[in-house]
Amino acid sequence: MSKQINVGVIGAGRIGKIHARNLAFQIPEANVLAVSDVYVEAARQCAAECRIPNVMADYHALLEDKAIEAIFICSSTDTHARIIGEGAAAGKQIFCEKPIDFDLGRIDEALRAADKAGVKLQIGFNRRFDPNFRHARDLVAAGKIGTPHIVRITSRDPQPPPLEYVKVSGGLFLDMAIHDFDMCRYLLNEEIKEIYAVGTSLVDPEIGRLGDVDTAITMLTYTSGAFCTIDNSRKAVYGYDQRIEVFGSGGCIQVDNRGPYSANIYTAEHIHRDLPYYFFLERYQDSYLEEAREFIKCIRNDTPPLATGKDGKISVLMGLAAQQSLKERRPVQFIAE
Amino acid sequence: MSKQINVGVIGAGRIGKIHARNLAFQIPEANVLAVSDVYVEAARQCAAECRIPNVMADYHALLEDKAIEAIFICSSTDTHARIIGEGAAAGKQIFCEKPIDFDLGRIDEALRAADKAGVKLQIGFNRRFDPNFRHARDLVAAGKIGTPHIVRITSRDPQPPPLEYVKVSGGLFLDMAIHDFDMCRYLLNEEIKEIYAVGTSLVDPEIGRLGDVDTAITMLTYTSGAFCTIDNSRKAVYGYDQRIEVFGSGGCIQVDNRGPYSANIYTAEHIHRDLPYYFFLERYQDSYLEEAREFIKCIRNDTPPLATGKDGKISVLMGLAAQQSLKERRPVQFIAE
Amino acid sequence: MSKQINVGVIGAGRIGKIHARNLAFQIPEANVLAVSDVYVEAARQCAAECRIPNVMADYHALLEDKAIEAIFICSSTDTHARIIGEGAAAGKQIFCEKPIDFDLGRIDEALRAADKAGVKLQIGFNRRFDPNFRHARDLVAAGKIGTPHIVRITSRDPQPPPLEYVKVSGGLFLDMAIHDFDMCRYLLNEEIKEIYAVGTSLVDPEIGRLGDVDTAITMLTYTSGAFCTIDNSRKAVYGYDQRIEVFGSGGCIQVDNRGPYSANIYTAEHIHRDLPYYFFLERYQDSYLEEAREFIKCIRNDTPPLATGKDGKISVLMGLAAQQSLKERRPVQFIAE
Amino acid sequence: MSKQINVGVIGAGRIGKIHARNLAFQIPEANVLAVSDVYVEAARQCAAECRIPNVMADYHALLEDKAIEAIFICSSTDTHARIIGEGAAAGKQIFCEKPIDFDLGRIDEALRAADKAGVKLQIGFNRRFDPNFRHARDLVAAGKIGTPHIVRITSRDPQPPPLEYVKVSGGLFLDMAIHDFDMCRYLLNEEIKEIYAVGTSLVDPEIGRLGDVDTAITMLTYTSGAFCTIDNSRKAVYGYDQRIEVFGSGGCIQVDNRGPYSANIYTAEHIHRDLPYYFFLERYQDSYLEEAREFIKCIRNDTPPLATGKDGKISVLMGLAAQQSLKERRPVQFIAE
Repeated sequence: MSKQINVGVIGAGRIGKIHARNLAFQIPEANVLAVSDVYVEAARQCAAECRIPNVMADYHALLEDKAIEAIFICSSTDTHARIIGEGAAAGKQIFCEKPIDFDLGRIDEALRAADKAGVKLQIGFNRRFDPNFRHARDLVAAGKIGTPHIVRITSRDPQPPPLEYVKVSGGLFLDMAIHDFDMCRYLLNEEIKEIYAVGTSLVDPEIGRLGDVDTAITMLTYTSGAFCTIDNSRKAVYGYDQRIEVFGSGGCIQVDNRGPYSANIYTAEHIHRDLPYYFFLERYQDSYLEEAREFIKCIRNDTPPLATGKDGKISVLMGLAAQQSLKERRPVQFIAE
Repeated sequence: MSKQINVGVIGAGRIGKIHARNLAFQIPEANVLAVSDVYVEAARQCAAECRIPNVMADYHALLEDKAIEAIFICSSTDTHARIIGEGAAAGKQIFCEKPIDFDLGRIDEALRAADKAGVKLQIGFNRRFDPNFRHARDLVAAGKIGTPHIVRITSRDPQPPPLEYVKVSGGLFLDMAIHDFDMCRYLLNEEIKEIYAVGTSLVDPEIGRLGDVDTAITMLTYTSGAFCTIDNSRKAVYGYDQRIEVFGSGGCIQVDNRGPYSANIYTAEHIHRDLPYYFFLERYQDSYLEEAREFIKCIRNDTPPLATGKDGKISVLMGLAAQQSLKERRPVQFIAE
Repeated sequence: MSKQINVGVIGAGRIGKIHARNLAFQIPEANVLAVSDVYVEAARQCAAECRIPNVMADYHALLEDKAIEAIFICSSTDTHARIIGEGAAAGKQIFCEKPIDFDLGRIDEALRAADKAGVKLQIGFNRRFDPNFRHARDLVAAGKIGTPHIVRITSRDPQPPPLEYVKVSGGLFLDMAIHDFDMCRYLLNEEIKEIYAVGTSLVDPEIGRLGDVDTAITMLTYTSGAFCTIDNSRKAVYGYDQRIEVFGSGGCIQVDNRGPYSANIYTAEHIHRDLPYYFFLERYQDSYLEEAREFIKCIRNDTPPLATGKDGKISVLMGLAAQQSLKERRPVQFIAE
Repeated sequence: MSKQINVGVIGAGRIGKIHARNLAFQIPEANVLAVSDVYVEAARQCAAECRIPNVMADYHALLEDKAIEAIFICSSTDTHARIIGEGAAAGKQIFCEKPIDFDLGRIDEALRAADKAGVKLQIGFNRRFDPNFRHARDLVAAGKIGTPHIVRITSRDPQPPPLEYVKVSGGLFLDMAIHDFDMCRYLLNEEIKEIYAVGTSLVDPEIGRLGDVDTAITMLTYTSGAFCTIDNSRKAVYGYDQRIEVFGSGGCIQVDNRGPYSANIYTAEHIHRDLPYYFFLERYQDSYLEEAREFIKCIRNDTPPLATGKDGKISVLMGLAAQQSLKERRPVQFIAE
């Protein structure tokens, strides 16, 4: 088991750099051989920082490198499905950031390609690897709270994305809530049969004018009859709000936010603690590392990944169903397939 | 302001006894002159314990006593509207347990009677008087969290009522969630424009067979566009679960459960605390006292009560709308009038 | 067991009024027949508020009233020992505020008088009746944390008393730490064999000039070899700080402060909670009620009180030993007798 | 600032491996060139895991390597002072695990050698680098709680070391409490003027028979008059208990334990959380990394380290004074020089 896995990173933006750094410095079992980016300067800087020997603008050159066994697709969303297809054809093990695509046809094609090539495809649902959420899921799976009845997911960003981004993001349900849709399935290991979503723009009317919402509640019914509510906001002034609760016949598990400092400070005014981590880069630092570590481990041990292509597809389906529910103002039946 | 208010208590069951004790021992400004109950023995025991001079089976005798200025209606729900009418006609100030009735015509009639007689009518939404919920509402009203966007109410009982009671209770929405419907309005001081409810029987299939649900989620939209989710279960094994959260443009307020003991106990297995109060008698002990104290104060100061007949009516309307939504499986528009 | 106990309250100052109110309004088993105070106007006001039929300036008249079975001695400290003696001679059951006296000879005399007369003598160590501290003690006694090794008591006032009071208070160890010395013994139900105290005036140099300290640490060794540290300050800007921790071979119990509101409030600056109760009147409201209730119960059931005359004496002995240790700058051997 | 610092690690035991891994994988600014251990196989395994090119049994060969600019001394305590001297003579920047030595003459000699050679000497008081403790110290230094009055350090191990180790450890005060003595000075940036220590063996009588204690309280007086109590136990069944509290004229800071999981789990029995980190390897993982990172940074920026040779010496002096106090059963005056 001592063999290192040679990796190529496609895309050297914010998320590509996180993976490059984790692979280079924190995962001894991985060896980053190349990084590509259409802005080659970004790839060059990433390579310098992470001591990656090869840099290229065109990811095709990276796919052609026979020494590279695994790729991390961190380029823009519209390229994901295509690169999965090409990477699979080149026999690479594939880690792909979420979402795979917004188009179901292209998603299916990508999934078939990976399937046909017999390569692993792990989707970047990093929150599945958050130690506390994973622990909660394990406790639920072990029956510690009996049969689950009610799941509650709180997911609020500290600030809305730029309006330019809102225009192309796919909307709150596909850009932001998609993580929560995946978490909902992950926690109970069960599919959803109905979705009802409401939403509006309370944070910034401009977001509403662009046809999106910035505040939304999604109510989901599991096939078992259990319920899940997801509560999203684009702006929590106190920072990234990421909590879950699973209530069942035998008890309840609550996972609260985490922050850099835990001190309680007593003053003449009140007792206070520091705010939670500001945003996902800090909050999910552990989980980005863990998902990459596990992907490398899956390759080395030839085991299936914890977040599959199918998971990636279903979360998109759920996002689309939520959009439909919002638009038609009615609950929508959902079949995960 | 030193004058005591003479009070009569109608109904000496569980809730009547709570009010009788609070009035007799904890509220020096009140003086309980009489207690009535159709089971006169219950009234007699209550009178003995609380040193109430007059006991009667028929509440009409109590209403005829000119010395009695205020009545607490704690008899069975089907008698509430009628006694409000008769009490108002007799010029009594009226505290009435919730719900007023399940029939809107009878509710309206009772409200009109009180209005016409110019007597105060306070409905037993005791949770409005819980010190922590009230404090939270005051902070919201003072703008401490900016404009409210999302309200979340958790309301789970420790155990389902007897099946015999389920049959006549009016159902989860009118019997249990009605308190939460009121809380929802109380926290933001704002009406609702849409209700969507889902529910099923996960706790006990017998409850389902009786046509009721034991697990439900209600999603409400305020006229301002803010949202509220209410999460109800008839059975939380860890005890009475009563929490609220109000999230707004400037912050968030969370009120957690309370319990008799606050110690943290570290053992070789884990760190544990004692469970929250088991049920409403313990959990809302303070608020039962406060609501009675405030009712007496309203009479003495001639100020309007914090929980009015209109509040009592609207919560019933909301319960009926939730039932309709559940039955028709669609969101229901709501006009509070 | 339905008989009420007739009570007389001696002293209608702050603490006397607390007891009078609790006995009058909250303890149905008690009946306050009389209240006395050298400032008869104070007694009169107390009587009016609590509906006490008899008022007098001289407590001797109260002791002569044969109908009175029990007395609450809430007069100034220098009168306690004498009134215990006289009350015992008159056959009254006695509740006496702490401290009994600062003079050991007078304490012994008072204890002998109560003993000889066969009357109960309960000392006002109200913290023993705090529900959380009592629960902690019960858990320790039940062996839930194994053999106790380290006890830690935090006891800080929100503000120093007036300098005029400091002059006559007996000093921090006899006036303030005396409660903690009693708590130390109460938690483990065990005596102390050594005391070492350090202290200085960090809060207000005037207190130092008067020969007292305002900040002190007392380290106590139990006869079993376990240790206790007590940490006192006359000024905690955040309010009354009253915590305990008991650490043992099988675990640890921590009891934190309590406050009126429990909400967590998230803002752009931090997460905050309200301060703990400001001072003992709010913090120990429950325990004042409980100690009076239990005293009445002890009389009715003829059982021994939870805080005895001997407890009162030993806490004074500990205070004197702490003063000696501070003065001689060395640990002092202690024998509780 | 892009230059890497070449490092040699002396000693490949438990703590040496931690530093080697952190330097190799987590600190891009460091480059580990060599590792030595008298058990050369240990060095070999460490080198293989951390991809360190050079391995040797004799650290002298490592000191002779001109390419190595900095050394981490992680060998047994009795070699620390000597290697500091030799490393300083060879012009290496020095990180040395605590304690420097138990002999003051040897400590002074080592400090003089480093001083004369003009090399940096950082002592392994890793807890200074714990993010929460450091944050607390920064808040104190910034005056957030006014003038400090009372410091409290809780420091309990999950289990006693093997008896064989107890025999040579130097005793609880020099082996275990030494970290707390350093923390005491670190939190207030102030020296101590008096020490009083009590201790006994409550955990294991064998430890007592070997002349050591396993439970101890140390009370320290700062030169400013503030007090600190340190509470040590060799066995807390719930895991590593590492807390601090600083109380001052303007408020109070409390830092509680940390653990791997933060979920609150509600069951029919109680509400529980997982235990804190079991021991120092998990609990202080961050601080081991930070202290190495900062040491490398100090070299690169030519700034003084946060934990100096003098800090190392004073903590030993405090340990010796605590031993003396325990033996002579009296407070001991302390001069930090």
